[in-house]
Order: sequence, then C-alpha cells, then structure tokens
Amino acid sequence: MKISTEANFLRALYQSWSDRMAGNPAMTLADLRSLFDEWHQPTMEPEGVTYKSEVVAGVESIWAFPAGVDAAKIILYTHGGGFAVGSAASHRKLAAHLAKHLGVIALVIDYRRAPEHPFPAQIEDATAVYRELLARGFKPENITTSGDSAGGNLAIATALKLREDGIALPGAVIAFSPWLDMEHIGKTLESNHATDALVSKAVLEGMSGMFLGENGSRSNPLANPLKADYKGFPRMYLNVGSQETLLDNATDLARLANAAGVNVTLSVVEGMQHVFPILAGRAVEADDELSRIAHWFKSL
Amino acid sequence: MKISTEANFLRALYQSWSDRMAGNPAMTLADLRSLFDEWHQPTMEPEGVTYKSEVVAGVESIWAFPAGVDAAKIILYTHGGGFAVGSAASHRKLAAHLAKHLGVIALVIDYRRAPEHPFPAQIEDATAVYRELLARGFKPENITTSGDSAGGNLAIATALKLREDGIALPGAVIAFSPWLDMEHIGKTLESNHATDALVSKAVLEGMSGMFLGENGSRSNPLANPLKADYKGFPRMYLNVGSQETLLDNATDLARLANAAGVNVTLSVVEGMQHVFPILAGRAVEADDELSRIAHWFKSL
Repeated sequence: MKISTEANFLRALYQSWSDRMAGNPAMTLADLRSLFDEWHQPTMEPEGVTYKSEVVAGVESIWAFPAGVDAAKIILYTHGGGFAVGSAASHRKLAAHLAKHLGVIALVIDYRRAPEHPFPAQIEDATAVYRELLARGFKPENITTSGDSAGGNLAIATALKLREDGIALPGAVIAFSPWLDMEHIGKTLESNHATDALVSKAVLEGMSGMFLGENGSRSNPLANPLKADYKGFPRMYLNVGSQETLLDNATDLARLANAAGVNVTLSVVEGMQHVFPILAGRAVEADDELSRIAHWFKSL
Repeated sequence: MKISTEANFLRALYQSWSDRMAGNPAMTLADLRSLFDEWHQPTMEPEGVTYKSEVVAGVESIWAFPAGVDAAKIILYTHGGGFAVGSAASHRKLAAHLAKHLGVIALVIDYRRAPEHPFPAQIEDATAVYRELLARGFKPENITTSGDSAGGNLAIATALKLREDGIALPGAVIAFSPWLDMEHIGKTLESNHATDALVSKAVLEGMSGMFLGENGSRSNPLANPLKADYKGFPRMYLNVGSQETLLDNATDLARLANAAGVNVTLSVVEGMQHVFPILAGRAVEADDELSRIAHWFKSL
C-alpha cells in the first residue's frame, strides 16, 4: 500500500529511536525519557489553540483551549510511553489537534510514571483529575477519556476504575494504538515484528516490568483491559495502524467490547505505525483519521 | 543571596544534565539533542498565545501570536544550545512569554545546526528569515532580533551581517546570557566555574569546535561578536545571571557597545543561572526580568 511521504516521518523517527536504543543497551531512564519526548516532533502546531499550565488534583497538567469550541466538553488526555516515558509536553499538540477536531477543550496530564510510581499510581492520578473535573462542574457525559499506547490503556482503565468506584462514567473513550496486553501474548507481536519500527516484545517487557514490577498481576483488568468486563461501558473509538505489533490489542478489545454490547468503532489504517495520529498537521493519514473521529464523536 | 524555590528548578535541571553528560562521556549528538530539548521544562505555558508551524524562507519555524498584541511588531527569536542543540520547540514558550510581555508576535526559527551545518549556516538562515519578514511587509524598526546563549550571539550577529549587507537593521536586539567569546578567554569562565551548573569551558570547547571546526576563525566578528564594531547598532538589552561562567560575555559586550555610542541596557541578576528567563511563568526572577525588558522596550 502507498503511504504519504509525510507519514514516513514517523517511521523514520521510530527507526532512529530503535537504532539509538539498540546502540546503547545501557541507556539510562533519564536518557530514554529525553528520547521519547521527541514524540512531539511529528506533530505540527495546531492553529488557534491557547494553553495553560496548571496543577490539577495534584497532577501537573496542560490545558488546551481551541478557539470557538464548547468549553463545557473536555477530553482528559493521557499520553503514551509505556507508563514510564512520554509527557504532557510530548503529546500537547496531538491532544490539541484532537480537541480542535471534536470541538472541545482538553486537559493533558503528567500522571506519575513508573518505575518510581508503579501501577496503580497512573490510574489514581487520572481518576483524581476526573473527579476534580466533576467537582468543577463538568458533566460526566461531557468528558471523554482519551490517550495513546499506554495512555490509551489508561483512558480505558480510568473508566473501568470509575465504574468500580461507582462514579458516573465519561461519555466516550478514544484510544490510539492502545497497549493492553501485559502478558505479551498477542499474535501480531510476532507477525508484525518486521513492520513495526518501534514497538517490540523486548521494549514492552521492559515497560511492563517497570509498570507492574516482579509481582504485579498481568491479568488484573485495570492493568490489562483485555481481561475486563465491558458491560455498560461508554461508546468507544479505537484506532491502530496495520503495521503495528499492537494491532491485535485493538482488534481484540473491539471484539470484546462489541460482544458486551458496547457501541465500539475500530479504525485500522493501512500502512500506519504506532500512534499515527501524532502526525496531525503533517500527514493526511492522521488528519483524515481525526476527521473520522470528529464525525463519529458528533454523530451521537 | 536568596533566590526563589522555583528558580532552583533551573539549577537542578542543569545539574542533572551535567551529571548525565559526565556519566556518559560518549553521549551521542542525538542523545545530547534530546537532553537539551528538556530546556522547555522550566517554562510554564504562557496563557492566551496561539501558534502556527510554518517553513519560512526554507527554515522550519513556529509563530507565536499572543492575543491582543500589535501584529506589525515581531521578535525574530533564535534559540540557544551552542549552535548544535536546542530547538524552536524547546524555546517556544520562552519566546512566547517575551512576545506577550513586549506586546508583539514572535517567530522562533529552527536554524540549521552544527556540526552538520557549521558557521555561517546559522546566520544565513536567520538573515534569510529577516529578509523574508521585510518582504512580508514588516518594517525593520518593528523587528527585534532576540535569542539566548548561542542564540543571543545569533541575534547580534544577524544584525551585524545585515549591516554588512547594507540591509536596514532591526529596531532592537535582546540577548539572554549571550555566548560570544569563541576563544574561551573570559575570566568568569574560571571564577564562576563553581557556581554555574551547566556551562563550563569543556562544554563550550565542544560546542565551538562543532560550530567553527578546526580551521574556523575564533575572532571573526560574525562568530565572536566581542570582536565587532558596534557603531550605529540598534538599542540593545542584555541580561545574565551573576552565577554564570558567561557573565563577562555580557558585561564585555555592554562596555563595547556603550563605548561605540549604542543605547545598551545590561541587567545582571543576582543568583541566577544561564538563560534564567526560561523560568518564565514559574519563577518570579524570570517574570520580573521580562517585565523590566517590557518597560525598556516600550519606553522608546
């Protein structure tokens, strides 16, 4: 299949990261975090969006306010990076593009990261922020939890935890290339190994080790949402690139949620790499996907 | 002297970089660039500013548009990082804070970096963008060249090159902790070695080597603005922290420019580290300094 020249930017970036990590197996966590913060590079600045830094419910966060949107509606965005790397800064522009497309505002949170803060610190932070949004007057149906990769897991796990705690659920969940399978048993982990420029079993094992530690359960539904019951779950939009090792994380979740009666939309985009919407403003594949999400979001 | 708790954030960040560089003397340039892109971390998002990515005169750039400012006035901002690291992204928020304080817009440029592109590629890019701004209708007197560290050098060298080329000069130059002395002979390089958490002779030698190569002249006024003639130069605002190894780069330049009849203001702020205005929105020392610059800028 043919992908745009601009979409190749993401593959090249991921390949450079993979090469750098392979060339320095002793890379420190600090250096790994610096490296993954280059994740912002594929994303162009979305026009007409202002920002604000604020500590919300104890969590450093960035607000994104696109001009002319409905400020009563909000995306609670959790960035990717295996629960250990990535940041609100690296995903600010992606969240802002998504918010602008949906016609809402966004809050991108710097939840605590592993290994300093293993599971469930991330869910504690996300749910604390969610409850703070309710306290500030946002209606649950006007909140969308969204994220990518490990942050896509979090966007789902946050809603699962809220349900467990008897708190009103968000109106929608949007996950880009969610990483869900903490057991590393997905078949595309092998079958797409050659086409995924970043995510390999070895990388995921490193990340899940930091997230769950030696003794953490890899089948706890809040860590591994492929083990969860989706009865009564909000409508959900999932996307994933066809070249991803995590492809079947998204397809398995879609099947599971659909079987539980959830209104779930899955978009598998040919030729795309991990979290391809991060090419927003640069590659037509990302912008088209964001337009599809907006269409889905607005057609309640 | 007493500095704010928030200002210590910058010293701690620099110390962490110094430790990481010392711990990995073979750090690759790619890893060094990732590390220095953390330079954005001290800066809070300035509120009420929108952005736009654009390639201007062949140079990838970020526009910053604070709400309600005079869009006929503009800062051409060149980021720091020894001509080899740093980026428009790492300095977007700093430039936006400055623009907001001055009541103007800003253009932050990703000029080509050394060593792939040694001197004078950086000045070529900055002057090409300046000429493009003129072509787009900006009046020279409404353009301010500004930058920090190596980018402060560039803000000055750009004006020197424009003068050489017979092009109308910018109305003002603002440089934060400019790095000018390519001979590494400044006295504060030794006397402030213990107090500066980042900039050492060893670091500067590495940077100037990439910038000028083996054979580049270290006394060319366009590379080393301490060797330049400032007759007829625009008014200039310089600041620097008292704890910096580059302290006398700023004080020497101020003396030189003043002797040439230039309207020059020098602000030496006690207890501050390299490029302390990058603490904008976080530390009172940075915000106070930006207010002083705004007062200076508006009192023509």
